[in-house]
Amino acid sequence: MNAPLKVGLLGLGTVGLGMIKVLALNGGEIKRRLGREIVVTDASARDLARPRNVDLGGIRLHADPMAVVNAEVDVIVELIGGISPARELVLAALERGKPVVTANKALLAERGAEIFAAAKRCGVQLAYEAAVGGGIPIIKTLREGLAANVIDSVAGIINGTSNYILTQMAVRGQGFADALADAQKLGYAEADPTFDVEGVDAAHKLSILAAIAFGIPLRFDAVATEGIGQVTAEDIRLAHELGYRIKPLGLAKRAADGFELRVHPTLVPADHLLAKTDGALNAIRVLGNAVGQTLYVGRGAGGEATASAVIADLVDVARLQGLDHSRLVPQLGYAEAAGGEVRVLRFAEIESAYYLRMRVADEPGVLRAITSILAEFDISIEAILQKEPRDHDDALLAIITAPVPEHRCDAALARMLQLPFVRTGASRLRVEHFE
Amino acid sequence: MNAPLKVGLLGLGTVGLGMIKVLALNGGEIKRRLGREIVVTDASARDLARPRNVDLGGIRLHADPMAVVNAEVDVIVELIGGISPARELVLAALERGKPVVTANKALLAERGAEIFAAAKRCGVQLAYEAAVGGGIPIIKTLREGLAANVIDSVAGIINGTSNYILTQMAVRGQGFADALADAQKLGYAEADPTFDVEGVDAAHKLSILAAIAFGIPLRFDAVATEGIGQVTAEDIRLAHELGYRIKPLGLAKRAADGFELRVHPTLVPADHLLAKTDGALNAIRVLGNAVGQTLYVGRGAGGEATASAVIADLVDVARLQGLDHSRLVPQLGYAEAAGGEVRVLRFAEIESAYYLRMRVADEPGVLRAITSILAEFDISIEAILQKEPRDHDDALLAIITAPVPEHRCDAALARMLQLPFVRTGASRLRVEHFE
Repeated sequence: MNAPLKVGLLGLGTVGLGMIKVLALNGGEIKRRLGREIVVTDASARDLARPRNVDLGGIRLHADPMAVVNAEVDVIVELIGGISPARELVLAALERGKPVVTANKALLAERGAEIFAAAKRCGVQLAYEAAVGGGIPIIKTLREGLAANVIDSVAGIINGTSNYILTQMAVRGQGFADALADAQKLGYAEADPTFDVEGVDAAHKLSILAAIAFGIPLRFDAVATEGIGQVTAEDIRLAHELGYRIKPLGLAKRAADGFELRVHPTLVPADHLLAKTDGALNAIRVLGNAVGQTLYVGRGAGGEATASAVIADLVDVARLQGLDHSRLVPQLGYAEAAGGEVRVLRFAEIESAYYLRMRVADEPGVLRAITSILAEFDISIEAILQKEPRDHDDALLAIITAPVPEHRCDAALARMLQLPFVRTGASRLRVEHFE
Repeated sequence: MNAPLKVGLLGLGTVGLGMIKVLALNGGEIKRRLGREIVVTDASARDLARPRNVDLGGIRLHADPMAVVNAEVDVIVELIGGISPARELVLAALERGKPVVTANKALLAERGAEIFAAAKRCGVQLAYEAAVGGGIPIIKTLREGLAANVIDSVAGIINGTSNYILTQMAVRGQGFADALADAQKLGYAEADPTFDVEGVDAAHKLSILAAIAFGIPLRFDAVATEGIGQVTAEDIRLAHELGYRIKPLGLAKRAADGFELRVHPTLVPADHLLAKTDGALNAIRVLGNAVGQTLYVGRGAGGEATASAVIADLVDVARLQGLDHSRLVPQLGYAEAAGGEVRVLRFAEIESAYYLRMRVADEPGVLRAITSILAEFDISIEAILQKEPRDHDDALLAIITAPVPEHRCDAALARMLQLPFVRTGASRLRVEHFE
């Protein structure tokens, strides 16, 4: 019989414990697939004394994570997160010829060049399915399943916390602050929610998706990012009436003069599957020039769902361990680097449809003045909605524009805000139609 | 530089030509991924003289497909379909040590045992991503991406023709025969639509999905199948009013005493993503015990979408060619066969919720008599709808039951049909709730 694959596990948080649980529960089925057992022999955690609701019997526990890297294990699973000490531990494992499976999107997005180069130099596998989309095998899909395609775009709900908050705002009519506080109480959002609600986490994931979709370098630094904190319950209601839902999207697109990498709250047509992905689910739409539109939906977080991806990587690693790199799927999906300069567009250079919302005095001539400004800036109107709420003297005006460069939209909006009957506090969100 | 991968192509139909088109269009991108070109050097077709709208320049054309198998190529792509001569050609290629990529679900479902055994004996790869779900990488997802899971169920819209017909019936209020005729005119359905509308094609695909989801033998012979021809426009309308859509589903489930493999028109809750998958799209829901519910959507047919899957297989085959079988993903996903007897349940043994629809005389006591029968057979009612159409003297009655064994449902329905005020022509469809 084949010897078990011995795993050294760094980090006993949600995903680490989820992995131990799933291996205990599904060990037999996994062995039937792989022909070999997967066993966690060594693990480390910051606080070994902390009570854990999972049986760790048989696992050697270490306070020092480097002791796990140095233990007699076949592969290292890194679930510590963050840049340091994860970076040092991963590099040390690679140097010692140990393959690494990681869920660490921050590390890969921000230090991927260094990490992937080390893996290549050392001739060792580095797998990261769990870094994006939780249990959805989106990395495998992009690197392998859709390998025949020129990928035109990837658009995804890739941060469950933001999606949960916007969904709660829609369902319960809550404001952002209340929905965030509830999400924190329920454990869906961290005490410091910045990474999630400001779009940093989504930008990490998007830069990885874009790299493997287009064969471009990791460009986390260049992702154009806006958080969801600007979205109001009123925006969600108006979007609804206009036939849209507001979703936290990561978008990576091939454009005429470069690549668009952006993360922002987005109006999505209500009948699109992305609009119907609610709660903490993730959904990723990939448009390939041969396959057309494809969509992948599943839990984007959670211990056992993410462990599903980690263990799938372990199965792949076990099968291919020790093979020449030419036998492996290239780390970022491409054997050959992109030729020429890879330009990532700034927000100001991106063309998009927009949703504009403002409060206006309820008097004649308002619509005419607003539409004149739009015409002057050569901005077509796709839809317009004026409402006179019962609890307010002013009217609400919401406009969906045709695609237009951001600077022109902003210039037009600035002009509108100078009109005497337009109140302060306008909102401007992007709209995506997915032809 | 690496030598190109030389492909011998059997069949120049929609998918074969789609493959040549995609290779021409995306050859550069595919080479960037694989580090090697993929080139079709030889091809065969039944009628070589037929005009084709694709540039076949540089491809040696053969009238005899066996000449392609014997040509100096690295891999054979089989896109002929059907059992014979595809079977003989695939076996011949394997015997000659040539890996085979096929989209032939009929061949694999009906003769998979022989074909896979030959591939194993010859130490040659056999890849079949394109056999199910068109361009959706569902085979890779089940065999690799979800390898950590005990798969509880797979439920999918895996026949685009049936989905197109039921969608047209819903959108245009057409009857089955009219919708079928339109689908034939538009090329969505074959002149002989039996394979699609009777569920044979879906049963082929389902038996493959079930084998790789559960690690059981291919059991096409045991798939319980009902066609969509029994669905009326009235059923679709009533289902709508009850909050459901009628979809052509393939279902593979782990049950207490065996496995359920079934294909039938199914009422699906209107808010489930499967209910929203319209037209010729395919959608597959996989429930794994670690990952939870995941969903995969895309084009289930069409030349270029299916070619996307064929070429993805070629990329995998090229990378792993010549490696020992222990390095490869097992053909049907499992290195070890299922222990013990694998029992596939018959329809009569399967428990399901049901939709019952009948015409009843518009007189007092009807509902009481019907509900008394249901109570007598210990069948709970989830929903009930009685309508008095303007154009008819009789009333329409539709009932959604709680899950109940089929024989009990049928016995109750038979009793109802004996009631003096119940007209002939009742309908009985299954309902699926996807907890």
